[in-house]
Amino acid sequence: MPYYWEDFEQGQVFELGSRSLSEDEMIAFARDWDPQFFHIDPKAAQDGPFGGLVASGWQTAALWGRMFVDGVLSQAESMGGDGITDLRFFEPTRPGMRLHGRITVVETKASSKRPDVGTVIGDAQLTSDAGTTVMRLRIRVYFRRRP
Amino acid sequence: MPYYWEDFEQGQVFELGSRSLSEDEMIAFARDWDPQFFHIDPKAAQDGPFGGLVASGWQTAALWGRMFVDGVLSQAESMGGDGITDLRFFEPTRPGMRLHGRITVVETKASSKRPDVGTVIGDAQLTSDAGTTVMRLRIRVYFRRRP
Repeated sequence: MPYYWEDFEQGQVFELGSRSLSEDEMIAFARDWDPQFFHIDPKAAQDGPFGGLVASGWQTAALWGRMFVDGVLSQAESMGGDGITDLRFFEPTRPGMRLHGRITVVETKASSKRPDVGTVIGDAQLTSDAGTTVMRLRIRVYFRRRP
Repeated sequence: MPYYWEDFEQGQVFELGSRSLSEDEMIAFARDWDPQFFHIDPKAAQDGPFGGLVASGWQTAALWGRMFVDGVLSQAESMGGDGITDLRFFEPTRPGMRLHGRITVVETKASSKRPDVGTVIGDAQLTSDAGTTVMRLRIRVYFRRRP
């Protein structure tokens, strides 16, 4: 029984579980996509702007994305997203730091052009064990309407 | 001779070269970060919302990020970014599609709190061979000021 557009409503909160990244996972990702010294070289990173190795921001965002796929999109008639606004990193992601994912529905809109499609806008968060906000973003995703 | 904050000015354009993603690269990335069927299963993707396999949006964004590291940040006294606004995907990234990267400086600001740091806000684009805009985002990066 997948989620259709009709199953989302303003104010709904999805808790997406938690996950952390190891130093090796950070380095492997950053070698491909963000090879700055503070993402790939633990020793040099100690004297860098974050005082240690931190995850690429692209990886932190994608980690939330993976939680969103596992927790929502994989059980939904999703047609993908087309953008993100207000992606902010409030603190860097460090090796082993546990991140808790969440998305809150802030708006749902039927498409004026396609009667079979609706939009959901969500406010996403990653928080630390201490409850501080590590990352926030707003995402728009298209879902099929219930046939 | 790295770039410091003083070396960036409004209107400056950096052409970041071009790159494409193979189907295998798309599937490998999406298995880790965005395992939706239209990112990991070429056959099923044919009947999906994009009529074929397309790259995860996180990967398209990170591909631009890699071009930015290679073309600018690796030669700069960068202290990392803290956010992105207005990330928009105008068309999906398909296997083998060549993407051309660019960033235009839209604003530079000295930090009011830290005399050794300045901010650069850039408008980033990926365009196709045909010149259409595939992705656009606005990014804020911190750079050291010239000592």
